[in-house]
Parts: sequence; structure tokens; C-alpha cells
Amino acid sequence: MIVEVVAVGTELLLGQIVNTNAATIGRALAETGFDSHYQVVVGDNLEREAGVIRQAMQRADAVIVTGGIGPTQDDLTREAICAATGRPMRFSDTYAEELRRRFAAWGRKMPESNLRQAEYPDGAEMLPNPKGTAPGLALEHEGRWIFAIPGVPAEMEYLLHHEVLPRLRQAAGVSEVLVSRILRTWGRSESWVADRLDDLFRATTNPSLAFLASGGEIKIRITAKAGDEERARSLIAPVETEVRARLGSAVFGVDDDTIERVLLALLEEKGWTLGTAESATGGGVAARITSVPGASKVFRGSIVAYATDLKRRLLGVGDDALGAGVVSEAVAEAMAVGARDRLTVDVAIAVTGSAGPDPLERRPGTMVVGVATPDGVKARTLRLPGDRERVRTYTVTAALHLARLAATGTWWQS
Amino acid sequence: MIVEVVAVGTELLLGQIVNTNAATIGRALAETGFDSHYQVVVGDNLEREAGVIRQAMQRADAVIVTGGIGPTQDDLTREAICAATGRPMRFSDTYAEELRRRFAAWGRKMPESNLRQAEYPDGAEMLPNPKGTAPGLALEHEGRWIFAIPGVPAEMEYLLHHEVLPRLRQAAGVSEVLVSRILRTWGRSESWVADRLDDLFRATTNPSLAFLASGGEIKIRITAKAGDEERARSLIAPVETEVRARLGSAVFGVDDDTIERVLLALLEEKGWTLGTAESATGGGVAARITSVPGASKVFRGSIVAYATDLKRRLLGVGDDALGAGVVSEAVAEAMAVGARDRLTVDVAIAVTGSAGPDPLERRPGTMVVGVATPDGVKARTLRLPGDRERVRTYTVTAALHLARLAATGTWWQS
Repeated sequence: MIVEVVAVGTELLLGQIVNTNAATIGRALAETGFDSHYQVVVGDNLEREAGVIRQAMQRADAVIVTGGIGPTQDDLTREAICAATGRPMRFSDTYAEELRRRFAAWGRKMPESNLRQAEYPDGAEMLPNPKGTAPGLALEHEGRWIFAIPGVPAEMEYLLHHEVLPRLRQAAGVSEVLVSRILRTWGRSESWVADRLDDLFRATTNPSLAFLASGGEIKIRITAKAGDEERARSLIAPVETEVRARLGSAVFGVDDDTIERVLLALLEEKGWTLGTAESATGGGVAARITSVPGASKVFRGSIVAYATDLKRRLLGVGDDALGAGVVSEAVAEAMAVGARDRLTVDVAIAVTGSAGPDPLERRPGTMVVGVATPDGVKARTLRLPGDRERVRTYTVTAALHLARLAATGTWWQS
Repeated sequence: MIVEVVAVGTELLLGQIVNTNAATIGRALAETGFDSHYQVVVGDNLEREAGVIRQAMQRADAVIVTGGIGPTQDDLTREAICAATGRPMRFSDTYAEELRRRFAAWGRKMPESNLRQAEYPDGAEMLPNPKGTAPGLALEHEGRWIFAIPGVPAEMEYLLHHEVLPRLRQAAGVSEVLVSRILRTWGRSESWVADRLDDLFRATTNPSLAFLASGGEIKIRITAKAGDEERARSLIAPVETEVRARLGSAVFGVDDDTIERVLLALLEEKGWTLGTAESATGGGVAARITSVPGASKVFRGSIVAYATDLKRRLLGVGDDALGAGVVSEAVAEAMAVGARDRLTVDVAIAVTGSAGPDPLERRPGTMVVGVATPDGVKARTLRLPGDRERVRTYTVTAALHLARLAATGTWWQS
């Protein structure tokens, strides 16, 4: 089934608000297994909105219109549906009564304009909206479906999940549920991951495998279709076990896990404490770690030694290390060992480098991460493209991942 | 002039990313005085993208296509413009050479697929993109304009403002320019600001005044219309002087100034160095400061003492201060003084507090900022609503502002 999303509102065209509704609906449609080829934004203009709905009905099986069903003269979606379908407007005495009852319950007098919300295109079903006064609409017209739901995100989402998607699933004869689980990997290339999973990728259709690359991570999505969620999960479980066996420690988490949460949980389990010594990231690693509630169970502190003399004085980095240059693996290791000692922690993450831009510095984007654990100390040099913010953000993420690998004893060369 | 915005990418239809580009472009068009009737999203599909561009050219004077100009097989905007206009594809040897040169400068081998970015529809001008490898395109076809710019927001914005809008203004014969200047204030309420500017707000039409509240700041936008930019600026200047005289030190910057840049510039001018001592913000103040290129001229380092024993050991916070509680003005002041001493800096910013959520902590959202300067030490307690992330972000901003007030000797009570 092909579904088109239409968002109505001049404020969207003017960029006063961002069209998050289209993304929310698009995601829900994709998760349900429906296709979507176009999303359109149109202003509060009857003729143009009717034209957009008419075109959407020609190229899709269903149209979801969001916005334009409020009580004001600007709200033209009901009229636009009448114009697009050639249907007359009707008035629901029942819903008008319901509106009066609601306003009375709030102790307010209902503005007469609210009665517009009791209007509906002939043949449309009114969809109850417990979160607002504008009911949604569902209309089957010449074998196609038109839905109108509010533009306010919370009301839109309620009606989407409680009224629109169930009707679309039924219309499409979808009785099965789709369940996904995402395995998140870091530090290996997409081709490394793909090579190891190639036969699984080809052989399995239910569950199916997909790769997603974003933010330096490769994600493996395992999606199963079954009569209910429990059965779908039991199809996913053996495939997950197999994928984990093949990818080993590259898999750091699932679904919404973040590396900072994963690292803190790992260290808490081991009974290890954590600290950082930072130069080029300027406290960014510590800030990311302490963004997690309860970080204080593991994280003790950080020494941000931006100036070279503070690297000596507060971290005990010596001339032997500094002789290799401030941006060097020797300095990153010395910073990590110094922080482990001075902060009295079990694991210390250190970062030195040059995030750029600086015309005097010949190596912009060179960042070095060091990690000291009770088992030893290691360092890795990263050469990163992009601007200062991107280099720093990526380095913070990389430092947390390298700390996980060091703490699990699976640090690898790649 | 009517301009239609087309965003290309299956990831938009799937809701994996939100179409912020359409909002950014819509806002820029509205500010320039252009109309926009439709925004369309289409996936990475040649036929559908060409159809969308063709339709946009029928109902608008100009079309801005964002996305689909990268190097991969999925990037079909160049082909779609050819299909929509019936023009053949050309290849720019000059740009191919430029691409090879750029990759060589990065010390990387250019993938052959990148040569796709040297292709352009016959007659199109290639628009230089210093922020990425994909050039934009500008094509005049049968009296209409088609622009193709990247989907990556930073690259899109650069090309929009430097290449697309100037050409559209010229094509539309827009002769008057609108120039705005924003004065940014912090620490005073909207009503405090409005009271002081009320008569100016009523009396002035060119330039006009507007208030904008966001992120804890009150901004005053002064907008003038004139035949050229210089004349517009000369209309703004006396109004700016008057507004500054009335608001005093509440004005911390203009336009895109950030408090971290303003603070660093102020301290550099005074010849003062800066450091931080952080608990609840976990390095966030230092990270924000070091996000500014060249911060090392002023910023020396930070001690993040998340654990209480590190506040004693690394910052010298004593029992007398800790007796008032870890989240207290006494501790914030002791941390600031300790950091000023141990980091050998002139100005030290300290933060202690509880960002929540923590069922054992009875005062979530209580944050205390201390600032030590060569002139003394002060502290301020902030009680902040919102979740952990919001409380921490707001506290970092407030700490930087309080440091500015302390360094300029205009710390106020409010």
C-alpha cells in the first residue's frame, strides 16, 4: 500500500515550525511496511490544498492530511476534502453537542467558531480526539482512503496510532506485526561487517537483515514478521546470537544504547572507576559521561590540561613523552597514566590532538586517544575529516569506544 | 517571485531524518520577501524526482532542490534535472581536476564515484562549495530558475546564502535591501527589557524593533530598509547606540556572537587567563569554551571534581565550605578560588549542583555557579526547571554569562 503525507499550514512554508509530523508519520508507515513516495507541504489556501489532495489520491492508495482542522477560518482541510472529492459538507449535531458538553466541563463558553469542527465531508467518519477539540476524519472515496488529523504533534500521534494505522492495516489486509532489533557496532568498516554477514544477509528473509551506517557506527537491523510480537522476537533471537558470534566485540549495544551508558554499565559491573585527562576535547569526554544519570557511581573526575605546562604539573607528563610532540601517542599514554594516578581511578581516558582550524598547526584533525586500565596502557591515533565541532564530537565517541575495548581486553588494530 | 522547495532523499520519507532544510529555506525566502506555495519531499527515484521538478517549474518561478548531489548511485538530482528539462549531461574537466587536487591535499585517493560530482546539466553553472565536495548547480531554463544544493545542512545553508539568494534577488529585481542587527541580552526578563524600550518600540518604523526570546536570552532585532546595505546600516547605528545606553551591560553581543566567544575576547583584551572547576556540569563549561578556535590563548584548563574527595584533594575545598553542603555557594566559591590557584589563572568559573534526576537528592535542578577574578569571588544559586540535559546546558550558559559580568565588574542581583 502506498501512502502520501500532506502537511497543511502556512507556518510550515515560512519555516516558523519544522515539519516533524511528516517524519513521525513516515517512520510509522515504514515500520508498518507501507510505502511512501511523496510528502507535500501546502499553505492555508483552499484551492491549493484541494489540488494537493486530488493529486495525492491519483498517485497513492491513501492520503494522510495533517493540520488545517482547527476551529479558525484558516483551517480549510474539511473544505479542501469536499472540493477534492466533490462531496457536500455535513454537520454533526451529535459532535456539536459533545463540543458544548466539553466546554461546559471546562467552565468556558464555546466560541461559535468551534462549531466548524462539527462539520465533515459527506460519508466521512469522525475520529474521536481525546487530546483536543478537533476530531479526525476518515473517508473512503472511490477505493482510496483520506485521513485528516490535527497538526499538533501530540494529537496527531494519538490519532495516527489509534485510528489511522489500524484502519490502514485492516484495509491492506496486514494481520502480521513487524518487530526490529538493532545491533550496534563500532570500529569496523561497513565492508568488514558485510563480509562476515554476507551469507546470512542473502539467506535470511524472515527475519531480514539490513545495514545502516551513521555517526561512525554500523548498525545491523534484524526485522521479523509474525502473528504476534512474541513470535517475532523468537525468530530474531537465534539470528542475533549468530550475528554476535561472527562480529564479536564490535557489537557494543542494542537499540537505543549509547556508548557512554554501555561503558558506565560495564565498569560498574567490574567495580572499576573512571576518569579522564583531556586536552583537545576540552572536557567533552567527561561532559558526555556525566550526561548519564547516576554516572557518579563510576566516574570520579577529569583533569583538562589545555596548556602544556598543566600537562606536566597536573598530570605528570614528562619531557621524554613531550619530546615526541604534544600530539603524540607517548603524550596520550602519559596523560592516561597520570590521570589514573592523580584521580585514583581504575580506568583513565586521555585525549590530545589538534581539532583545527589553526594555520600554525600543520596537522589539523589529528587526535590521539590513550586509555589506561589496571592491565596496562594503549594509544591510538585518529586522522579525522571535517570541521572542529565534528572532529571533537567524533573523538569523544571514539575515546569512549576505545575505553570499552581496553576494559574488555579486546582492543584491536584496524 | 514564487519559489518552490524540493527536498530529495528516501531517508526523509522514512522519517530517519527531519526535513529541517525546508524550514531553513522557507524562512530565508520569507525574510527576502519571496512567496512559497509548496514544499515537496521525494525519494531517491529518478522518474519521481524529475516529475516533481517538472511540476515545480510549472507552478513556480524558481525551484530549489536540496539533496541528491553526492557521489553515490543514489544521488540522482543531476540526472533528474536533465530529465525534467530535456538537457544532456556534461562533464567538467576543470571540476574533476579540482576534486583530485582536494583529495590529494587530504592525502586520500579519490574514489572514482566522486567524478559524478563533476557532471552537470548542459547550461548549468557550478556553484563552488567550500564546505564539501559536491558543487551546487544553477540553471536558467525557459525563464525559470532551478538550483540544486546539498542536503547536508551546513553546506546547504552556505550555498543558499552565498549563491542562491543573491541570484534570486537579482532575477526578481529586488532593489531595496533589508538589513538586521540583533542585540543579544542575558539575565534580564523580557518585561525588564520591554519597559526600557517601550517608546522606541512604538516610535520607530524604519528601523523597526522586534523582541525575540529564546534559550534564556532576550534579543532585540533592529531592521532597516534602504537602497543599499551601507545606508541601512547608517539607519541602524543611532538606534543601536540608544538601545545599548538603556540596557547597559545586559547586552553581551550582537548577531551570531556567542557568550563563549564574547567572554574569550573580553579576557584576551584584558590579558587574563581562564580556567574552570566543575562538578555537576562535568566538564561542559570547559568543553563549551574550547569549542571556540583559538581558545588556548585564554583558556588553560579545568579540574572536573565529580567525587567529593577530589574537590578536597585537587581543589583544596575545606571542611568549612563542605559543612554548608556540597551544593552550596560556599563550595562554589572555594572551588573557584582553588581552581584559580591550582590552574594558575586569573579567572576561574566553578559549578556545583544537582542536575537530577536522583531520588536520594532532595534538590534536583539546584545549581550553584562561583566565579573568582583578581578582584574577588562571588557565587549565585540557580533553581532550574527541566530535565538533566536542559539543566546542564542552561547552567553552562549561565556560568559563562556570570563570568563575563564578574570580569567586567557589573555582576548584578536579579
